[in-house]
Amino acid sequence: MRVGIARERLLGERRVAATPETVRQLVGQGLDVSVESGAGAAAGHSDAAYAEAGAEVVPALDPAGVDLLAHVRPLHPATAAALRPGAVTVGLASPSTELPTVRALADAGVTAFALELVPRISRAQSMDALTSQALVTGYRCVLEAAIRLPRFFPLYMTAAGTVPPAKVLVLGAGVAGLQAIGTAKRLGARVSANDIRPASADEVASMGGTFVHLDVDSAEATQAAGGYARELSADRGALQRQLLAPHVAEADVLITTAAVPGRRAPLLVTRDMVAAMRPGSVVVDMAAESGGNVEGSVPGEDVAVQVAGGAGEVTVVGLKDAASAMPADASRLYAKNVANFIELLVPQGPGDGGEIRPDFDDEVVAGACLTHAGEVRHEPTAEALAAL
Amino acid sequence: MRVGIARERLLGERRVAATPETVRQLVGQGLDVSVESGAGAAAGHSDAAYAEAGAEVVPALDPAGVDLLAHVRPLHPATAAALRPGAVTVGLASPSTELPTVRALADAGVTAFALELVPRISRAQSMDALTSQALVTGYRCVLEAAIRLPRFFPLYMTAAGTVPPAKVLVLGAGVAGLQAIGTAKRLGARVSANDIRPASADEVASMGGTFVHLDVDSAEATQAAGGYARELSADRGALQRQLLAPHVAEADVLITTAAVPGRRAPLLVTRDMVAAMRPGSVVVDMAAESGGNVEGSVPGEDVAVQVAGGAGEVTVVGLKDAASAMPADASRLYAKNVANFIELLVPQGPGDGGEIRPDFDDEVVAGACLTHAGEVRHEPTAEALAAL
Repeated sequence: MRVGIARERLLGERRVAATPETVRQLVGQGLDVSVESGAGAAAGHSDAAYAEAGAEVVPALDPAGVDLLAHVRPLHPATAAALRPGAVTVGLASPSTELPTVRALADAGVTAFALELVPRISRAQSMDALTSQALVTGYRCVLEAAIRLPRFFPLYMTAAGTVPPAKVLVLGAGVAGLQAIGTAKRLGARVSANDIRPASADEVASMGGTFVHLDVDSAEATQAAGGYARELSADRGALQRQLLAPHVAEADVLITTAAVPGRRAPLLVTRDMVAAMRPGSVVVDMAAESGGNVEGSVPGEDVAVQVAGGAGEVTVVGLKDAASAMPADASRLYAKNVANFIELLVPQGPGDGGEIRPDFDDEVVAGACLTHAGEVRHEPTAEALAAL
Repeated sequence: MRVGIARERLLGERRVAATPETVRQLVGQGLDVSVESGAGAAAGHSDAAYAEAGAEVVPALDPAGVDLLAHVRPLHPATAAALRPGAVTVGLASPSTELPTVRALADAGVTAFALELVPRISRAQSMDALTSQALVTGYRCVLEAAIRLPRFFPLYMTAAGTVPPAKVLVLGAGVAGLQAIGTAKRLGARVSANDIRPASADEVASMGGTFVHLDVDSAEATQAAGGYARELSADRGALQRQLLAPHVAEADVLITTAAVPGRRAPLLVTRDMVAAMRPGSVVVDMAAESGGNVEGSVPGEDVAVQVAGGAGEVTVVGLKDAASAMPADASRLYAKNVANFIELLVPQGPGDGGEIRPDFDDEVVAGACLTHAGEVRHEPTAEALAAL
């Protein structure tokens, strides 16, 4: 059966769903692989490298000609509609925001797997694209902050005096937040962090950060199923911001990473809190694309916020496509996630080989399934579609 | 006597020659200080902060009204001409490229001190602006590389496989080069480095880098007076490039820092050597403003070089104003260098105070003097002017 790898069509998307390395892996599974010409160019992979790995390189990939279409960004509804009934898709599907595509996938009888829905169990870690891409984003956001900061991150003791290290505050200690903590620490900053899940204190410490304990009543269980953070109630959110304010004011760099999958990101930092920072400080809002943790952040743009008193500005960076900005390693990890998931769809018994036949008794396969046989299998998405 | 701090006039220059901290130091020496409004804005210092430190903040600084003018960039000849006879200047003067200003300073009877000329002896380290600004540039160039590289610097061991660390090659192991080595190492890269001074091997190792030994005949003494590198002869330069080529081809990031003060930077890397790198690789040429270590680099611009075979591009960054891009800490160190030098000009005996009276018996004062009493005191500059 044939796996197709298209050139990503979204403007600014530089990743690719397969590398020559994963093409070898798929071919080793008995699959045929078609790669659209130029698909890997931005990630550093030439057509020749794909061909050498065993792929057929085609000038334009016809969705109707493949049994499985692997992708990075959610498909366009028209692409979904062009797939054959029974065809399989594997990639990031962003079901909560891409309902028209989900509808088109179901209508076309496609078996669509959304990597966002891969259960967070150890066996599926190697297919967890949210984690692999969050690693890239967490590293990247520190570089974005460091290059804009008018100061050093590390402490320097020089003949002309001692330069104290920059103070970095990270809000949200998921994969991206922990990675940001570790990277800022590597670069020599003094790093502190907060997360509404008290359990994250140890993880913050293990990356070299100091956990900021906020006195928000922790009676509510804030640890939700699946390890993700749940939303705080409005009152608790206001209390949280109030307690965070002095920590934000003291930071040279603030990095916010608090996202609630499928929902608007929580507002952690108001404009007034930003304006209370020192001139030249930098804020990176990693959740800018999902509504923003920081009031006034704009995805893909730097916004200058006048400090209180008017003696300078704070730069608020609305992070966008951060993983795509490091397409080589982001693709390396993502393609591996995709190939590992596809491998799960290929029965491994004696006499098997080269067949894509999802086993829905497997909790990873069932959990990641978005549409199958004309139906939307993911409950929250089915409900959202029904509510339209 | 009155010290003046002007707003820097050069486009893109964001540093300032005094901070509120150094204003306090100068006022403590019995000096009056005038600061031009807005002079410290880009470096994060408000007019109010200067006033609080004891400076008089003036809407526009009149060069004719001060006894000592401190500056970052070389003065404009018109500014030099407007100074009072007997006035003193302290700052970077770039004598080899700013001959008209040197002439104007001499003609105006100004006593000009060029911080580039401060002798490299331990007592003068705290006034060594080349070193303090090279520290900033060395750190900065690594960020400029990291943010453009489509890969991570550090090694990551993830559920989706191991990502090897980036390979960084640094050419030139002066202050900036060593700082680049240390910063790239901090970020987790595998770093190697070369310098034509064999003595630098230990320094490279102490920053965590691996010294690349080239088999260039080292019979010529390459360690020149003052600790700076001398130029290689043309033949030796070609041999050096030939020996460097395989190391360049293997690097993900190449940083070149080889500058010869007052001369054109040596060409270390040809376009062919760049084209032999992998697609996505990044080259930062720190010497772009003085002719470039890398063929085809353009100061202040990114140049894309097609790799041999045409399967991608290498980005060649012509670094420009790197210290100015981190104006807060660059100014912190620079202003301290300036204030320490000014302190040297103020006699410290009982009954003294607030007088600026250079003692030319002091080797630091004499060494740093560019013009005095109508004469150009720096021999090479005097010769260059005579040759015009």
